[in-house]
Amino acid sequence: MITRFLHIFALFFLLLLTNLAFAQNKILVFQSDFGLKDGAVSAMKGVAVGVSPDLKIFDLTHEIPAYNIWEAAYRLVQTVPYYPAGTVFVSVVDPGVGTARKSVVLKTKTGQFIVTPDNGTLTLVAQSLGIEQVREINEVKNRRKDSEKSYTFHGRDVYAYTGAKLASGAITYDEVGPELPKQVVEIPYQKASLENGVLKGSISILDVQYGNIWTDIGDDLVRQSGAKYGDVLHLQIFHQRKKMYEGDAPYSQTFGAVTVGKPLSYLNSLLQLSFALNQESFALVHHISSGNEWSVVVTIQKAK
Amino acid sequence: MITRFLHIFALFFLLLLTNLAFAQNKILVFQSDFGLKDGAVSAMKGVAVGVSPDLKIFDLTHEIPAYNIWEAAYRLVQTVPYYPAGTVFVSVVDPGVGTARKSVVLKTKTGQFIVTPDNGTLTLVAQSLGIEQVREINEVKNRRKDSEKSYTFHGRDVYAYTGAKLASGAITYDEVGPELPKQVVEIPYQKASLENGVLKGSISILDVQYGNIWTDIGDDLVRQSGAKYGDVLHLQIFHQRKKMYEGDAPYSQTFGAVTVGKPLSYLNSLLQLSFALNQESFALVHHISSGNEWSVVVTIQKAK
Amino acid sequence: MITRFLHIFALFFLLLLTNLAFAQNKILVFQSDFGLKDGAVSAMKGVAVGVSPDLKIFDLTHEIPAYNIWEAAYRLVQTVPYYPAGTVFVSVVDPGVGTARKSVVLKTKTGQFIVTPDNGTLTLVAQSLGIEQVREINEVKNRRKDSEKSYTFHGRDVYAYTGAKLASGAITYDEVGPELPKQVVEIPYQKASLENGVLKGSISILDVQYGNIWTDIGDDLVRQSGAKYGDVLHLQIFHQRKKMYEGDAPYSQTFGAVTVGKPLSYLNSLLQLSFALNQESFALVHHISSGNEWSVVVTIQKAK
Repeated sequence: MITRFLHIFALFFLLLLTNLAFAQNKILVFQSDFGLKDGAVSAMKGVAVGVSPDLKIFDLTHEIPAYNIWEAAYRLVQTVPYYPAGTVFVSVVDPGVGTARKSVVLKTKTGQFIVTPDNGTLTLVAQSLGIEQVREINEVKNRRKDSEKSYTFHGRDVYAYTGAKLASGAITYDEVGPELPKQVVEIPYQKASLENGVLKGSISILDVQYGNIWTDIGDDLVRQSGAKYGDVLHLQIFHQRKKMYEGDAPYSQTFGAVTVGKPLSYLNSLLQLSFALNQESFALVHHISSGNEWSVVVTIQKAK
Repeated sequence: MITRFLHIFALFFLLLLTNLAFAQNKILVFQSDFGLKDGAVSAMKGVAVGVSPDLKIFDLTHEIPAYNIWEAAYRLVQTVPYYPAGTVFVSVVDPGVGTARKSVVLKTKTGQFIVTPDNGTLTLVAQSLGIEQVREINEVKNRRKDSEKSYTFHGRDVYAYTGAKLASGAITYDEVGPELPKQVVEIPYQKASLENGVLKGSISILDVQYGNIWTDIGDDLVRQSGAKYGDVLHLQIFHQRKKMYEGDAPYSQTFGAVTVGKPLSYLNSLLQLSFALNQESFALVHHISSGNEWSVVVTIQKAK
Repeated sequence: MITRFLHIFALFFLLLLTNLAFAQNKILVFQSDFGLKDGAVSAMKGVAVGVSPDLKIFDLTHEIPAYNIWEAAYRLVQTVPYYPAGTVFVSVVDPGVGTARKSVVLKTKTGQFIVTPDNGTLTLVAQSLGIEQVREINEVKNRRKDSEKSYTFHGRDVYAYTGAKLASGAITYDEVGPELPKQVVEIPYQKASLENGVLKGSISILDVQYGNIWTDIGDDLVRQSGAKYGDVLHLQIFHQRKKMYEGDAPYSQTFGAVTVGKPLSYLNSLLQLSFALNQESFALVHHISSGNEWSVVVTIQKAK
């Protein structure tokens, strides 16, 4: 009798542990180009918390410029690796809402999930973290009830709903829908290179708050180039073929290494070669922007 | 002995279940015109989490234009229905803070609660979701301790505090304060109509992030008008009596149905007739704004 | 046998209670000058939730103007007191990231913790809430794994990580690092005074959303000055030595006490003497800003 009781007790304890273990996977992170001025983001969260009140809901950003898939892709790769495996991201930058683009959930090799239209948003995450699996969302099963009449808010009715069901464990990854080939729609972009000691790359993005210039040249290439802290990097910036800026930027560990307003080069928080003015905006002062049409050429002048 | 033990065990288990059931109602959603640049919103959340650390706290928006009660009303009706019954909203757009307007908690017929000054904020939610009950907040009982000297931050000292106590179950709805008649202060506005095949309505609001035009003409009226996808809607926009825009907008299920920059008409995520330029801003391009002074007249040209 | 079993049961129950007690201290609040347009804030939260999924994570604000340590200090003192004892704040406004400024955790006398570079950010909280203890972060122990190559994102790799470990109970306050003397780096500023019935002070900050003028003259000084609601305050505003504004502002409990567009004086939500135009922006209309160079001189004209 006691023994049977102990069994029940152990079972109950296990159940509790299982629940706690589940709790570790209930993280849901939203990204969109909706902005925060209206109720759209909040409606998505309402749908999610209606699926499960135990979700831990976070924002990546909702200030992606409208329809800018490239920036959505970039913000994901900047953020996804810092969340634990099992986290579910919902990214809704979807100029083709309601058209033929597929709605998918990518599982990265590092164990995070991304729910999104397959329109290029996954370009950088797929390349950087690797594709474990891609599944197409079964929109008959995984769609909020009574939402069939609305064609224009898949973010709320399909993506938030599916993301919440997946994150909460209400459905397994398999239940999202049928598996697709391990590939995603990719936005083409110029990749960084090192040739004859010259670093070339594109300006992936601006560090918008500060106006710093972030390139796609990673720390590996910089190391191979032989650049060391204390060297001076000679920087040229081109928009298409036109030279927009040329100057020297000491390669530094900290912004404080140069006086206020002076240029420096450094590895940013993603360990990519970046350029800044100490406490001023490089982008504003020198009229630099980001994207495929913006490229950099960097040569190294060794410290003596 | 064993039996008594089982009883204790069962009781304990029930207690646990009850707690879990409670957890489903601990959702608290904030809206205000405070913006996110200072500490005001965060202070409200601090007060709430001090009442109960178990609350699940969300934002609707804090970017309501200062003192704009109409927009506060609109954002509520856009969002409240997507949160589960039992959710408590706290809306603080309160140009009359400290004056005679009543502080109330409305319970909708769908089971959500809204804590707000009764200054018109409840206009649309009351009409759309129905009034189950209205109670006036007893500000002697339901007021943060040591806040008697501050007359200007009811959002923190009364509304956030009361909302948190209600959401967490520390007080019942009855304990909010005395019941009032089932009515709220309403902002007058022109309602949508269909006469002789002509749809008339006002521009309730702009879809600010994209510049789309949202009217108050619902899908029921559109259906009655006989409009079908593929028809062309002929749109006139007036500011007071002056015509500001006239043109054709194909009635479409998706934005992609017209080429970039071209106008279309569609049902928005709230199933209201809306007008947009594909991937451009109708409002900016044609200088259109929203509010009672902006009206639309729409006729239907059937597809052949 | 039964007795032993009851012991196990009681132990298990205690464990559960302890966990619930812990849960009350797991509040983590972030402030920065990062803005919300990119993934930086979200990456900090990802690191935190990776340390412990049970954290309750909030924002103070991320819209501190870039590098503005004074405003960071002000927003903390405006918000920290409204969160329960045990709450951990992480504030990252850090123009000297990677340089010699110390990384510290202050414990206030009211029991909140603030994780921050010691660069002036703690000026006002230390003066207002008192210093219980200051500890320097041991950056060898309390640093995210594999982050040694990144020198420019201490917010994510050190501050968010340490704040999350502290808030979740993974480390005690002692384990943050060695204790320092009970002092912090302070930004000098002019303090409020009352002399011969004349109130003097500085404009600490603007209530940015509304354009109200907030001084550092507290309600104690106002009470000592003899001002009562109904009196008229005569206000002069100076920028350095130059007079920028002079006028009368009735001392009121509510904004509605004067007609729209008219000036009034009042105690703000922090009980400091403030000036506003009812439903308009004092700062915009009269070109007033905030900071040490902006001072006010106030005399009282008693109501008859």
